[in-house]
Amino acid sequence: MDRNEKLNLSMLFDFYEMTMANGYFRQGMQDRITYFDVFFRRVPDGGGFAIAAGLEQLVDYIRDLHFDEDDIAYLRSKNLFEEDFLDYLRTFRFTGDVWAVPEGTPVFPGEPLVTVRAPAAQAQLIETYALLAINHQSLIATKANRVVRAAQGRTVLEFGSRRAQGVDGAVVGARAAYIGGVHGTACAVSDEIYGVPAAGTMAHSWVQMFDSQYEAFKTYCEIYPNNAILLVDTYNTLKSGVPDAIRAFNEVLKPRGITKCGIRLDSGDIAYLSKEARKMLDAAGWQTCTISASNSLDEELIRDLLLQGAKLDTFGVGERLITARSEPVFGGVYKLVAVEDANGSVIPKIKISENVSKITNPHYKKLYRFYGNDTGKAIADYMTVYDEVVDDSGKLTIFDPDATWKKKEVYDFTAKELQVPIFKSGELVYDLPTLPEIRDYCKAQVETLWEEVKRFDNPHRYYVDLSQKLWDIKHGLLEKNS
Amino acid sequence: MDRNEKLNLSMLFDFYEMTMANGYFRQGMQDRITYFDVFFRRVPDGGGFAIAAGLEQLVDYIRDLHFDEDDIAYLRSKNLFEEDFLDYLRTFRFTGDVWAVPEGTPVFPGEPLVTVRAPAAQAQLIETYALLAINHQSLIATKANRVVRAAQGRTVLEFGSRRAQGVDGAVVGARAAYIGGVHGTACAVSDEIYGVPAAGTMAHSWVQMFDSQYEAFKTYCEIYPNNAILLVDTYNTLKSGVPDAIRAFNEVLKPRGITKCGIRLDSGDIAYLSKEARKMLDAAGWQTCTISASNSLDEELIRDLLLQGAKLDTFGVGERLITARSEPVFGGVYKLVAVEDANGSVIPKIKISENVSKITNPHYKKLYRFYGNDTGKAIADYMTVYDEVVDDSGKLTIFDPDATWKKKEVYDFTAKELQVPIFKSGELVYDLPTLPEIRDYCKAQVETLWEEVKRFDNPHRYYVDLSQKLWDIKHGLLEKNS
Repeated sequence: MDRNEKLNLSMLFDFYEMTMANGYFRQGMQDRITYFDVFFRRVPDGGGFAIAAGLEQLVDYIRDLHFDEDDIAYLRSKNLFEEDFLDYLRTFRFTGDVWAVPEGTPVFPGEPLVTVRAPAAQAQLIETYALLAINHQSLIATKANRVVRAAQGRTVLEFGSRRAQGVDGAVVGARAAYIGGVHGTACAVSDEIYGVPAAGTMAHSWVQMFDSQYEAFKTYCEIYPNNAILLVDTYNTLKSGVPDAIRAFNEVLKPRGITKCGIRLDSGDIAYLSKEARKMLDAAGWQTCTISASNSLDEELIRDLLLQGAKLDTFGVGERLITARSEPVFGGVYKLVAVEDANGSVIPKIKISENVSKITNPHYKKLYRFYGNDTGKAIADYMTVYDEVVDDSGKLTIFDPDATWKKKEVYDFTAKELQVPIFKSGELVYDLPTLPEIRDYCKAQVETLWEEVKRFDNPHRYYVDLSQKLWDIKHGLLEKNS
Repeated sequence: MDRNEKLNLSMLFDFYEMTMANGYFRQGMQDRITYFDVFFRRVPDGGGFAIAAGLEQLVDYIRDLHFDEDDIAYLRSKNLFEEDFLDYLRTFRFTGDVWAVPEGTPVFPGEPLVTVRAPAAQAQLIETYALLAINHQSLIATKANRVVRAAQGRTVLEFGSRRAQGVDGAVVGARAAYIGGVHGTACAVSDEIYGVPAAGTMAHSWVQMFDSQYEAFKTYCEIYPNNAILLVDTYNTLKSGVPDAIRAFNEVLKPRGITKCGIRLDSGDIAYLSKEARKMLDAAGWQTCTISASNSLDEELIRDLLLQGAKLDTFGVGERLITARSEPVFGGVYKLVAVEDANGSVIPKIKISENVSKITNPHYKKLYRFYGNDTGKAIADYMTVYDEVVDDSGKLTIFDPDATWKKKEVYDFTAKELQVPIFKSGELVYDLPTLPEIRDYCKAQVETLWEEVKRFDNPHRYYVDLSQKLWDIKHGLLEKNS
């Protein structure tokens, strides 16, 4: 079967979502109002923060939520569901509310990136896709942001499609990398669909297809005089690659007055080769020729190359970005935090665990970020019960939710709610930003973080605190259930 | 834009494939016949072999290769291509030949998993998707095979959709995991589309939705008496989880004469909890109750759990399988190995590199596997030039292509060609096996490998040798080009 024509994303659920949805239906509980939070427990790579992404794909999915007759026939074939439930699925749509932090927001462990308030069966069924979309794109946006910061203003291009984990790994992955700050991608379809700028010039095969490397370079410069980035390592970078490139630039570009051009290094000791190549290019009058590198790079290698004085203008980052190779999982979870009783009262729920780190923050909550009025920098995040209002006109004492004796007084600050309404009663109420808007927002928000939070090694743990009221409710539930 | 309705996989190429294709077109070289090999350089996780997968998706892609008017409009907007080339793309189809090792075959570094013989522009354009499909699925099939072998015959289920790298990461990833040997998946749509058996019962939210854990369990058993696998760690596994499960089994299943049931552990010390739970279940007469575990498992943890005497029947393996977390990249590459001249003579090509490991095996080749006639075990793989024939009726001396003084004489063996024809002049000539057939084939072929090749730690390096003729050609090219 051709997956690309057939796939109804509404069927992308872990099977237990459907057995539970049917269970709720059989008990007459399917419309009981539930609250679920999406949150994560630790930042990949030991980083100080993550970048939230994937909301647009979650929105598309929720708007399209439905089951076709094919899907119903498949479910019938499992011999687990009765016809009244299958009928119920025929008109199944999402009718709930969703709040989320905008894509591109720096986020921290324990915070609700997405909150869903919906009838139990609906809230349950969207779990798998919601997590998949948020986990995947937050993973790649977070990694991309690290790589871009390591490059210190130099150009970073995403080159990883061929090593991505499936089609979306490449196409949606390039979107997420762009949110995180890369300047472009090699993936043409990500440009066509999402507008991530795509570019590319030549592989080794181009060079091999000609009788000589020089002929390959000269021909390329003639066809693409304004886009001549020559791959110089097919045979010997310094002995023939760079000299042949200079000769082609001299013969084809110079007579036309073109000064913009480049070479790319894809193997060998990039630090050494880039320095030698830079000298050769400069000596030949090609100070305007850029040097790109693209051999299994990541943020650590880029940082090291720059420390070694490598003469590089552009980094093509492939497999280590598109798979987040060093830590390829963003561990977002989707947990029940409250239910409504028959009167519409919100009853907080907690999930206890033998692993303390797996205990949830209960209740329908609000998430605030406090910005210092003097610096514009983010001071702390603060979670409250949904009906609390933070007064940022005076002083507020916040405390560490684990080490409660660690207190901090905040003042002269502005409290901003991080979550915004996305769906209200099943209707989209959010004006989705464009991809460049998301990328700009991400860049601006990362700049509100202190350097201590942004450093790669042992970053400062940013404060994510609970209000006294929320803390009391959480600990009351822990006492009651343990 | 809704990615799911729009995506033409033919547009999933690294941009340089198109600038090169246009370059060939501008030079009148687009129809020059080229040969490309897909091969990889090392087995992930230091394993002794990989499992080839992804061919079916590559076949679907090649059959569908085409450019829509939307795509052509996008390419025009890049201001790099002239109209005659865009016209040429309107009728662009794949007209070449493809050979490949069947999905599920154990494969080794340096071997051509796929060989493409096609006009240069076509062969170039399919590079990115060919690598993406083969790399992704071979990665997951290889990892799954490790996990399944660690479980020593126990059931392994793929549970990772929510942490997968995008939709295909989940859906196609479950297909690849099934090829590698898992018994089923949680991913419903992978069942619906590919027939990977999907199953699932309950999450913690089910338990939290009821006034008591016992009521949640009892209700579940009543609705699904034949599929009652209860998650027992929401509050306290041994204090309330297992006792409540036993009570529900006694009250609901026992009167109906149902003995098949299960519990699942998702946190805590799985080894200890499983042993204690086993005792409690046995003491209550529920020897037939299975115990599943599902907390961040992989092949190492499963091996350790079994060494510790954990009483487990089923493993649910999530993020560490679906992302191949320990090494999430399968490094397959696609390299030009030959071209045909005007007379149809095949001219071998080599890619030299400053990194010796990146040097290619040139030429249009055949790939053989030698099986010992006495044991049925695989002895060595052997690459020859396309026009060589291996005579397996007598003795053959093979040698290590790096340490050429290391020779081995093989006799009493059967030489089997590993690649089979897939496309001939653009027509599919391969009868695609069903997914269960691929899975069975994989299992049988893994059994032809010696234990020394299969062990996880320091596996024996399997012989992948070159014929004398191929070795001479390779070294001639190395001398000429260095």
